[in-house]
Amino acid sequence: MNGFGQIGSRRAPDIVNFMKHNYRPDFTYADFAADFTAEFFNPDEWADIFKASGAGYVVLTSKHGEGFPNWPSSHSFNWNAKAVGPNRDLVGDLANAIRNKTDIKFGTYYCISEWLHPLYMKDKANNYTTQSFVLTKALPELYELVNKYKPEILWADLADGQGPASYYKSKEFLAWLFNDSPVKDSVVTNDRWCHECFCKHGGYKTCRDKWNPGKLQKFKWEDCMSVDRHSWGYRRNAPLDSYLDINQIISTFASTISCGGNMLMNIGPTKEGTIIPVFEERLRQFGSWLKINGEGVYGSVPWSHQNDFTTKNVWYTKKKTENDGTAVYAIMLTWPDDSVLVLGAPIPSQSTQVTMLGYEGTVNWISGPGGQGMNITLQNIPWNKLPSPWAWMLKLTNIAN
Amino acid sequence: MNGFGQIGSRRAPDIVNFMKHNYRPDFTYADFAADFTAEFFNPDEWADIFKASGAGYVVLTSKHGEGFPNWPSSHSFNWNAKAVGPNRDLVGDLANAIRNKTDIKFGTYYCISEWLHPLYMKDKANNYTTQSFVLTKALPELYELVNKYKPEILWADLADGQGPASYYKSKEFLAWLFNDSPVKDSVVTNDRWCHECFCKHGGYKTCRDKWNPGKLQKFKWEDCMSVDRHSWGYRRNAPLDSYLDINQIISTFASTISCGGNMLMNIGPTKEGTIIPVFEERLRQFGSWLKINGEGVYGSVPWSHQNDFTTKNVWYTKKKTENDGTAVYAIMLTWPDDSVLVLGAPIPSQSTQVTMLGYEGTVNWISGPGGQGMNITLQNIPWNKLPSPWAWMLKLTNIAN
Amino acid sequence: MNGFGQIGSRRAPDIVNFMKHNYRPDFTYADFAADFTAEFFNPDEWADIFKASGAGYVVLTSKHGEGFPNWPSSHSFNWNAKAVGPNRDLVGDLANAIRNKTDIKFGTYYCISEWLHPLYMKDKANNYTTQSFVLTKALPELYELVNKYKPEILWADLADGQGPASYYKSKEFLAWLFNDSPVKDSVVTNDRWCHECFCKHGGYKTCRDKWNPGKLQKFKWEDCMSVDRHSWGYRRNAPLDSYLDINQIISTFASTISCGGNMLMNIGPTKEGTIIPVFEERLRQFGSWLKINGEGVYGSVPWSHQNDFTTKNVWYTKKKTENDGTAVYAIMLTWPDDSVLVLGAPIPSQSTQVTMLGYEGTVNWISGPGGQGMNITLQNIPWNKLPSPWAWMLKLTNIAN
Amino acid sequence: MNGFGQIGSRRAPDIVNFMKHNYRPDFTYADFAADFTAEFFNPDEWADIFKASGAGYVVLTSKHGEGFPNWPSSHSFNWNAKAVGPNRDLVGDLANAIRNKTDIKFGTYYCISEWLHPLYMKDKANNYTTQSFVLTKALPELYELVNKYKPEILWADLADGQGPASYYKSKEFLAWLFNDSPVKDSVVTNDRWCHECFCKHGGYKTCRDKWNPGKLQKFKWEDCMSVDRHSWGYRRNAPLDSYLDINQIISTFASTISCGGNMLMNIGPTKEGTIIPVFEERLRQFGSWLKINGEGVYGSVPWSHQNDFTTKNVWYTKKKTENDGTAVYAIMLTWPDDSVLVLGAPIPSQSTQVTMLGYEGTVNWISGPGGQGMNITLQNIPWNKLPSPWAWMLKLTNIAN
Repeated sequence: MNGFGQIGSRRAPDIVNFMKHNYRPDFTYADFAADFTAEFFNPDEWADIFKASGAGYVVLTSKHGEGFPNWPSSHSFNWNAKAVGPNRDLVGDLANAIRNKTDIKFGTYYCISEWLHPLYMKDKANNYTTQSFVLTKALPELYELVNKYKPEILWADLADGQGPASYYKSKEFLAWLFNDSPVKDSVVTNDRWCHECFCKHGGYKTCRDKWNPGKLQKFKWEDCMSVDRHSWGYRRNAPLDSYLDINQIISTFASTISCGGNMLMNIGPTKEGTIIPVFEERLRQFGSWLKINGEGVYGSVPWSHQNDFTTKNVWYTKKKTENDGTAVYAIMLTWPDDSVLVLGAPIPSQSTQVTMLGYEGTVNWISGPGGQGMNITLQNIPWNKLPSPWAWMLKLTNIAN
Repeated sequence: MNGFGQIGSRRAPDIVNFMKHNYRPDFTYADFAADFTAEFFNPDEWADIFKASGAGYVVLTSKHGEGFPNWPSSHSFNWNAKAVGPNRDLVGDLANAIRNKTDIKFGTYYCISEWLHPLYMKDKANNYTTQSFVLTKALPELYELVNKYKPEILWADLADGQGPASYYKSKEFLAWLFNDSPVKDSVVTNDRWCHECFCKHGGYKTCRDKWNPGKLQKFKWEDCMSVDRHSWGYRRNAPLDSYLDINQIISTFASTISCGGNMLMNIGPTKEGTIIPVFEERLRQFGSWLKINGEGVYGSVPWSHQNDFTTKNVWYTKKKTENDGTAVYAIMLTWPDDSVLVLGAPIPSQSTQVTMLGYEGTVNWISGPGGQGMNITLQNIPWNKLPSPWAWMLKLTNIAN
Repeated sequence: MNGFGQIGSRRAPDIVNFMKHNYRPDFTYADFAADFTAEFFNPDEWADIFKASGAGYVVLTSKHGEGFPNWPSSHSFNWNAKAVGPNRDLVGDLANAIRNKTDIKFGTYYCISEWLHPLYMKDKANNYTTQSFVLTKALPELYELVNKYKPEILWADLADGQGPASYYKSKEFLAWLFNDSPVKDSVVTNDRWCHECFCKHGGYKTCRDKWNPGKLQKFKWEDCMSVDRHSWGYRRNAPLDSYLDINQIISTFASTISCGGNMLMNIGPTKEGTIIPVFEERLRQFGSWLKINGEGVYGSVPWSHQNDFTTKNVWYTKKKTENDGTAVYAIMLTWPDDSVLVLGAPIPSQSTQVTMLGYEGTVNWISGPGGQGMNITLQNIPWNKLPSPWAWMLKLTNIAN
Repeated sequence: MNGFGQIGSRRAPDIVNFMKHNYRPDFTYADFAADFTAEFFNPDEWADIFKASGAGYVVLTSKHGEGFPNWPSSHSFNWNAKAVGPNRDLVGDLANAIRNKTDIKFGTYYCISEWLHPLYMKDKANNYTTQSFVLTKALPELYELVNKYKPEILWADLADGQGPASYYKSKEFLAWLFNDSPVKDSVVTNDRWCHECFCKHGGYKTCRDKWNPGKLQKFKWEDCMSVDRHSWGYRRNAPLDSYLDINQIISTFASTISCGGNMLMNIGPTKEGTIIPVFEERLRQFGSWLKINGEGVYGSVPWSHQNDFTTKNVWYTKKKTENDGTAVYAIMLTWPDDSVLVLGAPIPSQSTQVTMLGYEGTVNWISGPGGQGMNITLQNIPWNKLPSPWAWMLKLTNIAN
């Protein structure tokens, strides 16, 4: 999950208008920092919610494109979360809570370049032939971040997607990260280390925001998406219909893991340091779903088919199990109209069995035409025995393909 | 629904502590007003949400026990929502939106006495033998409120429940309200006009907060309850489990209307003027439920039984319908374990029919032992055809009792 | 001296412009209260300065035309100096300091009507045939003020100079003040109790602001003037040349007391509760002058001539002294070019003696032509022996007129 | 004159107490920036006042030891006067006004090290063997400052007086400054470039704050003193007696120039961007004195004697004049009790003449005993002809020594 203090980089007329009506003309972006109070920030509560969500890793925004560090950065003296506003080391406090209270891995998002930093502006105007920004700001800050918080995920980003590796000294930094840093043996990174790195180099790919390719990828990748459709940060005036509902989240998740990706679900905390109830609700809903269906998620890999070719919104994963050999898991996102799920991809065998994760009874099925595919009969499951009101996972054992 | 700016009247240690850690020592309650910005207050959006909720009336807090008027009260010069903070007439703006965009009746909550007003304190210390507060503040303000906004519900309250009718001049005011005021022909009031009025006098009874007697009342009454279990105002740090979920709300509602009451569902708006998503979600969920089940709600009256004596959490209403004679509606809050609902109260006739509101198919039933009661069979309703995931309303026609 | 919180009543374009450039559009007058912090208000220091100034009475603005009470008025709940901003009873705290540390009399300025109070606006629109404002706000507040702080001067004012005595119930209130109030035996008031009262009725006259008639008046009067030429309140951006210098202040003072008036010297304190150094300087300069020349000021009365007809900027007072019979005091505001002061008014006798207050040596003189007037020779006073660098007071004893 | 935003570096208990009583516990130093509004900052008015003061150069604090740059420093992104608070380039705006409206030279004070900068702290803890602070912050900022504003005086300072030239790269920077910078031909600097530089190296010496040696120095030096005895910044609660009066300022000035130094008179502007009236008064008083006595000040050099050995508080300067040969100027700080000034140092000649600057008449004198010294008779100067009420300058021509 991303974190604190993100704002949109493009000036929409309604934002200009909002500023005009609610602030004095000279109010600056930096002046906002005093309003970022985080008085209710309770990292233990965050850790509890993240744990309940079933997340494997948490990624906090340590600095976004606007440049405000959420830790007491030595390289942004008096403009960081310790110096103004919260007066706390938000990165450190959350890292400690996550590590003390959960088994979740702790990661940090760090936006290397900045939208408006004058040194970056100048280097960019010089076609990246000068490195004032990188040498006096970005790299020193990155080293500090890693040395101090030892993140297990280092999620790099570029504010504008521009600038070559030679400018950012990406190779040198990554060489240090993987060979000499305190996290050399555990750290994972993404791919956004330089303009030409995107979707090419790195520990896993995050080609673009909300990237969900819908088919199997040969490399590790991640769909970084956001529960608020329109923002990565918290919007105080967002109405309910801005937020993905739990069915939409599970649907995105199903298509992601079926294609070999991870999903990074972004929520924007408030300036008070809270996770608003509707985000907490989505996270807990998702966690309750994972609690039932985790067997087909954690440790699973893509199957030969990603989604079913007959019933498109069924997505597959595969996993070796102790007792049942290799199982294939079909995530059924919507209930079939007549309660019979028609799957085209699996080729059943005589010993094929179908169960629904979280439901104790048996599930009947018959082969599809020509032995290809399966028709799974669901009408005899009493609905008050259904494991979840949302998507359901059917486990197919001993299938032939 | 109550409205803006409510705070708890009792000082809990955690609030004292919060103030200590987040405000300068001299910060006063009145200083908060500057932070009450309401910059996102959009009364049309509120009206849309209230309309979607299925509400018949909306009650905005025009002034709570702390004394801040949400309209430009002439009797609280420079301490009201027009003079400080929002710089808007919140009462007027919402009244207009409700009246322009919906058929919902617009009401105002007004707390006559005040927790800390020095004049009220003095009158009270004088055993209500002086009337400085009532004559120079409360009554002038009440007249202004009614004359200006013409509320269809005037929801009176007393900050401390104390003071006789003679002190408040309740009779004189109500005489004016019902005989001479601009709303004399339409206005409805509750009962909290004086210490001895509570639960005795008034248009309908609101004996105490969250009053839900659970049995039939001889008079009109209202259960004024709150979606946040612990507060009438908005709490910025309330976690998800503070909020009633939709099943709990419908359950309260069912028991209320079965006993002849109305339910006033309170939500606390934020200082920014918004209804947070989780409240919007509850309101819309409730509205979607009412859209299906409104037939058994709007215009219904209590039946001879309130809840069923065999299956306790089934609640009844009754209504004369155009085609089916008088129907009895059974609100089934939980699905029976074996999908057979056993009702003890209804005495079926030969022409008795059972339907589920929102479901087109027929519902089978058999008489209970000795012709008393009914066993209603639900298992043949496919769950993806269920009208709602929450409570269900069964309509029983032509029953004998 | 007037006091806290005064602002100009007329909207000058530069103020509109200032607000536009420095505040959000919705910022209201009442919102300013939070900025009125008074964190440095030290009434003991104020008392010391007033004592050093030689003042006989101090008049604090308890409420000006904008309506903000500097004491915890019960009739302006949550909009007063105790409820917002300073969180102190400024009137009470200053009264105590003045009374504990000095012999100065303590008075309160109170502006009965208010520029923008809706109830006053309404009464005024009704041609003062209704009295909502007076009965529920102004009079209750006046009674509270007198009962609580027992002021020895009650300086009444009208925000707009309008409204008859019958509206304000001036007679009834003054009857109470002088017959029944706790200060009935000591209180003094001015004349601004109603539209027709100005310059007609009252303990002393303050016909208009900065009224300095320049000739003898038959009644008691006061010149209420301000050290800042352009404001009664403190202006944060006032340049040095806005302030009267000590010569100008003494000049105004001389013409005032010579005509039988008192001078009320206004200074505007800051929102922080301080008296800025330039005001302190003026007050101390004035006090150091009074320390030397008080003999001809305190207890003096006008002489038969107010200013001299030959040398116009010499002003006279008169006083019975213990040793010298009745003395006439000539305040010489500027040093004569050739160091010879030519006075036309006094008729010297043979035993007439001239001294300069604060100077021990004798002062020579000769009669004017025809025995009328006196030529007083000052050149033999070494300038480093002069009692003060500003105006000088010559004491004439045993003169014939 | 120093400038904006200075605060004391040592925590006095009364400041701790003040913060406790007036701010929330988490309020940080950086949070103050939002209160630094400078809404009344009018650099043209400042230029007018400085011109009226007779100053030859103005030195604005571009950054003090706390680190806040008063220009939009690229090396303190979002914590500088353009990014927070004033939202203006204060250095640039004042530079322009001074240069457009006056002949005064414009200089900048820059504190190289910082009290609390974590990088400086670290370098210092490393005994100055690392240079993170100097290389990424201080030097880049110094180059930017000089390149952008082209100051004619570069007033260096060290927050704690520590650190060797090798750490600060002082030699390299000064080599650039005098050989290659845009101000190489005009710039003047002081001596505080490194620990061992103080009072040793540099364009002129400023050995310590308020350094006034009282005897002739062999090098150029400056007495940097402050009108507020207790502070370099503006203190909102400073009483009048904190400020030097004009006699004290002239006294310091006399002793400074007599010993070959310049005086840098510090005043602390307010957070609103104003020069308070009492400072304006001192500056204008000083300017009016210089207008009369500038002849003996501008272009003068020390005489063989600094102060007189007989009358100690008479200080001398010397200057070649067009008409009178070399003149010696005696600054008489106090008027002699009997109006006869006894000077021991000058050896008069027959053609020696004495005049008082600003007074047209002649001044009589006689030789002292043995032809050494002079007794100058002042009693025949009418005091209303005195050029100034403060110190006086006697010009002695054709003296023998």
